[in-house]
Amino acid sequence: MSVIKAEIRSGAYYDSAFLMNVQRSLAGLANVEDAGVVMGTEGNKELLAHINLLSPQVNSAKPDDLVVVVRAATENDATAAIGKLDELLTMRKKASGGTHRPQSIENANQELPDSSWVLVSVAGRYAAGVARDALRNGKHVFLFSDNVPVEEEISLKQMASEKGLLVMGPDCGTAIVRGIGLGFANKVRFGPIGIVAAAGTGLQQVSSRIAQMGGGVSYGIGTGGRDLSEKVGAVTFLMGLDALSRDPETKVIVLVSKPPAPRVAEEVLKAAKKAGKPVVACFVGRPISAFQLDNLYFAVSLDDAAQIAVNLINKNQLDVPAAPDLSKFAPGQRYLRGLFSGGTLAYEAQYILESYISKMYANAPLRKENKLPNSLVSQEHTIVDMGEDEFTVGRLHPMMDNDLRIRRILEEANDPSVAVIMLDVVIGYGSHPNPASELAPAVAKARALAEKQGRFLEVVAVVTGTDDDPQNFHEQIQLLRDAGAWVSPSNEDMVRYAGRILQGLEQSTVAAASVIKMPVDLSTLQKPLEAINVGLESFAENLVAQGTPTVHVEWKPPAGGNERLMSILEKMKQK
Amino acid sequence: MSVIKAEIRSGAYYDSAFLMNVQRSLAGLANVEDAGVVMGTEGNKELLAHINLLSPQVNSAKPDDLVVVVRAATENDATAAIGKLDELLTMRKKASGGTHRPQSIENANQELPDSSWVLVSVAGRYAAGVARDALRNGKHVFLFSDNVPVEEEISLKQMASEKGLLVMGPDCGTAIVRGIGLGFANKVRFGPIGIVAAAGTGLQQVSSRIAQMGGGVSYGIGTGGRDLSEKVGAVTFLMGLDALSRDPETKVIVLVSKPPAPRVAEEVLKAAKKAGKPVVACFVGRPISAFQLDNLYFAVSLDDAAQIAVNLINKNQLDVPAAPDLSKFAPGQRYLRGLFSGGTLAYEAQYILESYISKMYANAPLRKENKLPNSLVSQEHTIVDMGEDEFTVGRLHPMMDNDLRIRRILEEANDPSVAVIMLDVVIGYGSHPNPASELAPAVAKARALAEKQGRFLEVVAVVTGTDDDPQNFHEQIQLLRDAGAWVSPSNEDMVRYAGRILQGLEQSTVAAASVIKMPVDLSTLQKPLEAINVGLESFAENLVAQGTPTVHVEWKPPAGGNERLMSILEKMKQK
Repeated sequence: MSVIKAEIRSGAYYDSAFLMNVQRSLAGLANVEDAGVVMGTEGNKELLAHINLLSPQVNSAKPDDLVVVVRAATENDATAAIGKLDELLTMRKKASGGTHRPQSIENANQELPDSSWVLVSVAGRYAAGVARDALRNGKHVFLFSDNVPVEEEISLKQMASEKGLLVMGPDCGTAIVRGIGLGFANKVRFGPIGIVAAAGTGLQQVSSRIAQMGGGVSYGIGTGGRDLSEKVGAVTFLMGLDALSRDPETKVIVLVSKPPAPRVAEEVLKAAKKAGKPVVACFVGRPISAFQLDNLYFAVSLDDAAQIAVNLINKNQLDVPAAPDLSKFAPGQRYLRGLFSGGTLAYEAQYILESYISKMYANAPLRKENKLPNSLVSQEHTIVDMGEDEFTVGRLHPMMDNDLRIRRILEEANDPSVAVIMLDVVIGYGSHPNPASELAPAVAKARALAEKQGRFLEVVAVVTGTDDDPQNFHEQIQLLRDAGAWVSPSNEDMVRYAGRILQGLEQSTVAAASVIKMPVDLSTLQKPLEAINVGLESFAENLVAQGTPTVHVEWKPPAGGNERLMSILEKMKQK
Repeated sequence: MSVIKAEIRSGAYYDSAFLMNVQRSLAGLANVEDAGVVMGTEGNKELLAHINLLSPQVNSAKPDDLVVVVRAATENDATAAIGKLDELLTMRKKASGGTHRPQSIENANQELPDSSWVLVSVAGRYAAGVARDALRNGKHVFLFSDNVPVEEEISLKQMASEKGLLVMGPDCGTAIVRGIGLGFANKVRFGPIGIVAAAGTGLQQVSSRIAQMGGGVSYGIGTGGRDLSEKVGAVTFLMGLDALSRDPETKVIVLVSKPPAPRVAEEVLKAAKKAGKPVVACFVGRPISAFQLDNLYFAVSLDDAAQIAVNLINKNQLDVPAAPDLSKFAPGQRYLRGLFSGGTLAYEAQYILESYISKMYANAPLRKENKLPNSLVSQEHTIVDMGEDEFTVGRLHPMMDNDLRIRRILEEANDPSVAVIMLDVVIGYGSHPNPASELAPAVAKARALAEKQGRFLEVVAVVTGTDDDPQNFHEQIQLLRDAGAWVSPSNEDMVRYAGRILQGLEQSTVAAASVIKMPVDLSTLQKPLEAINVGLESFAENLVAQGTPTVHVEWKPPAGGNERLMSILEKMKQK
C-alpha cells in the first residue's frame, strides 16, 4: 500500500516549464512512485485523482495554490521527497537566473528599440494586460497564453486594428516571420508562400509539408482559434490577409482554419477574392463545392493545401483572371433568370451559383426557404425548372415543346432588373428535332427588345449533346451564337461564366465595409526580426538560437497578482 | 380587343405529343393570336391564365377534359379556328395511324419474344399498371411517366427486385443500353464507363461530356429521382450498381444523383466500396470531403465526374487497393484511441475518419452530440486533444511535456477493445527537445503489453516537422518505427491508413443486409436491345431509328379510364 503526501503553497507563482522540471526531479527520487507539481485548478485535481495522486489536503487546494504531491512506498520515503522541495525550487531558480534583466516592456524596449514584436506567454489572467502594454509600445503581439476571456480578445484586437498592429492570439501556438519561428514553430525556409492560420498545428502541418515538398514560406500569421468567430469578426485574419496581399515577396496565400462562422467565412472569402494573387483556402472540416473559383483554390485537407500551393509556385500559375466587363449593363440590371428544361442542370446551376451570389429563388430550390412563391413569376435571381411536374401534367416536356420557354424568355427580357438569361438546350433522341431553330430567334428577339429599352441582355446557354445525336450538335451551338448567346457544352462552364458577371454586378451595388481601421505597415514585418519575450523563457531561448536579437523580461504579476490592485494600475495606464 | 373562344371535350384521351401538334396547327391559322390545347388540370389552367387564354368556360374544365382555347382578333376568327378542330383531330389521327398493332404487352411479346425491355410513357395514373404488366412478362421497365405515386413505385420495385428486373423510374427521362438511347438520350458510343443515375439530365450531361472527351459508355441506368429517398431505399440504384460491378465490359462506374437521404447515401457508398472497380460518385450539391477513398472518387460537378472517369480509363488507373490485413487482431479489438497534442490535427483526424467509421467521441468534437463525457476516460472510438485548456491550465502543453500522454497510451493499451492507438508528434522550436525518445519506449511498452494479453496493437503516428528543425526529424521517425509504430509525415496519410483498418474491423462485425432479392441476369442487358413501347410513339420511332427492333403497343386506358373498373381488372390479373 502506497502513501500519498502533499504540500500546498499559497500565492506562489511559477511558470509551467519550471513546475514540470520540479515534478520530474521529485518523481525521479529513490522510492517515489509518482509525483505531481501543479497549480490547484479543478482540472488538475481531476487529473491527479485519475492517476491516484489525490488526497483530502490536495482536494482543498485553490486555483492560486501550488500543489506538490508525491506517492511513495512508505511514509518515510514520501516525507523525504516532500522535504527536498525547497532545495529543488532554489536549485531550479538559480539555474534559470543570472544577469540583470528588464522587468517591463518599456524597459526592454529601451534595450531593443528596433523590435517590432512582443511574445506573451504569461498565465491567462495576466496576458491581456501584458499584450496591452505591448500595443501601447507599438509592437505586434504574439499572444501564446490561453484562458484569456473573449471580451479581452475583442478589446485587444480593436486597439490593435486602430494602430495597424497584429494581435496573434490569444492561444496562438505558432507563427513564422521570414524563416524565424515564434512559439511552437517549425524551421521552414523563406519562400513565396504566405499563410494565415486560425489553427496552430494546422499552420505547423501545412508549413512543414510545404518544406517537405521543397517549398518556402514568407510569413505564417497565427490568429488564435477564436479570431474567425462571429464575436471577434476575423480582425487579425483579415489584417494578415491584407498584409500578405500587399507583400511583394508573397506570391501565393494559404488560409488555414477550422470552419469559420458562416458570415465570417463569407467575409474572409470576399477579401480573398480581391487579393490579386492565388489564395488556397483550407477550412478543415468544411467540405468543398469546387476546386477553383477564379483566384481561389479550395483544399480538402492540410496536405492538399500544401500541395496546391507548392504546385501553383512550381508551375508558375500565378495569373489572376481579369474581372468581367460590366460596363455594358445599364444601372439597375443585376438579376439572373435561369429557364431550364433539365432538372439536374437547374439543380447544379443553383449549387454552383451559391459561391457567386447571395440568394436565389427556384421552383425546385436547394433549400426550402428559397422556394419561388409563384413558378410563373420570377423575382430577383430566379431559376425555374420547366420540366417539373407542375409544368408537364397533360402537356409535353420542355425538351420537346419550346413554347412555354420562349414566352418566358421574352417576359424576362422585358424586366429592367434582369442582366442574364440562362438556358439549357438538351438535344438527343426524344428531344425536339431542332430546338435552336426555335430558341435562337427568341434569344435574338429578347436581346433586341432589351437593347431598344437601353439595356444589354447577356444570354448564356449550355447545349448538352454529342456529335452523333440526330440533331446537328455544332449547328445548334452556332445558331444560338449567331443570335448573340454565349454558349458552352458544359453546364458548369456556363454557370461559372454567368456567376462571375452576377457577382460583379452584386458587388458593385454593395459598399465594402472593413474591420481594418489601419493596415499593417509592411516594413514592420519585412525588417529583420527583433523581439521582446514575456513569459516562457524557452521562447526567448528559441529566438536566440535562430539568431534573433531578443530581450527577455523578468516578469512578475503586477501588484503581486492582486486583481483589484491590478485593475487600478491598468486604469492609471490608460490615462 | 381580342376574343377568347374555347371548347371542352369530356373524357377524351390523347397523348401530349398529339395535343402539341394540334395546338401548333390552331395557333398557325390566319388571324389566330394564340391557342392552347391541353388537359384541364389546375396547373394547365394557371398557365393558360398567365398567357391570357383563360375564360370562365375554360376555368370550369376538369382534369380529364380536353380544353381547346384560341384567342383571335375577332369573334369570327376565333369561331372559325375552333370550327377546324375536328378536321385537325382527324387529320392528325390519320397521319399517325396505319398498320395493325398489338393492343397489349402480352400480344407485343408474342411478336418480339426476345425483347428484354418495355418503355412506358402513358399518363401517370395508368403507368404503374402498365409497368406491372411488363414485369409480369419478365421485362426490364423504362418508366418515363411522371406523377406516379411513391407507394406504386415502392410496390413495383419490390416486385422487380424479386424477379431480378430493373424498374428505371418513374420519371426516368433517359437511359443508355450499349449505345442505344431510351427516352431522352444522347447518342454515345459504346465504351467502358457505366453510369447509374437518379438524375435525368445529369445522366445526359455526364454521358455527353464523356462522349465530347472521347470516351464511351456501356450502360446508363436511370433510376428516377425518388429512388435514393429513404422510402424507396435505392432499390434500382443498388441493383444497377451491382450489375455494373459484375459486367466485365464496364471498367469504371459513375454514380450521379442529387444528394441522397443520408442513410441511403451511406448504403450506396458502402456497396460502391465493394464494387471491385473504380467508382466516381457525383452527388450534385453535396460538397466533398476527399478526392479519393480507395476505389471511390468524389466529383464536385457533372463535368468533373465525366473528366475523372475518362482520365481513369485513359491512364488505365483501374487497380483497386487490397484490403488491409485484419487477421492479426484478436476478436473484440475494433476501437481507435487518438491521443493528440495538436488541436487542428485532432480535428482533421475526426473529419477524415467520418468517411470510414460511424461514430467517434472526442473532448473537442466536430459535433456536440459526440462530446466525450469524461476527457480522462475513452469510450468506443475516441479522439482526445490533450492540448485543450482542460489539460493545460497551470501545466505544460503536451508538445513539451509527454507525461500525461505516456500514461494514457498505456491505459488505452490495456483495453482489450482497442485496435489502434493514434499519436501526433509535433517537433520544432518550443516543442520537447526529443519527444520520440520518451514516446517510442511507451509505444513499445504498450504493444508488448497487448501482445502479452494475446492482442495486436497497431500504433500509428504522424511526425510534423522539417529537416531543419532543432530535433532530428528523421531520427524521430526512426525511433517510433523501431518501437513498432506505423509513421508518416502527413496527418491525412496516417488517418486514412488507420481509417481503412477501422473500417475493415467495423464491417467484419456488421452483417450485410441487401435490398437485392435477386440480382439482374447480366445476359438480359448484354444481348442486342429489343423493346416494346407503350405511350409516346416518338420513343418507338427513336428506337427504330437506332436500328432497334421495336413493337409499339396501340394502348388505350383499360376500362375506358374508369378507376373502379381498372382496379378490379388489376386484382383479377394478380390472381
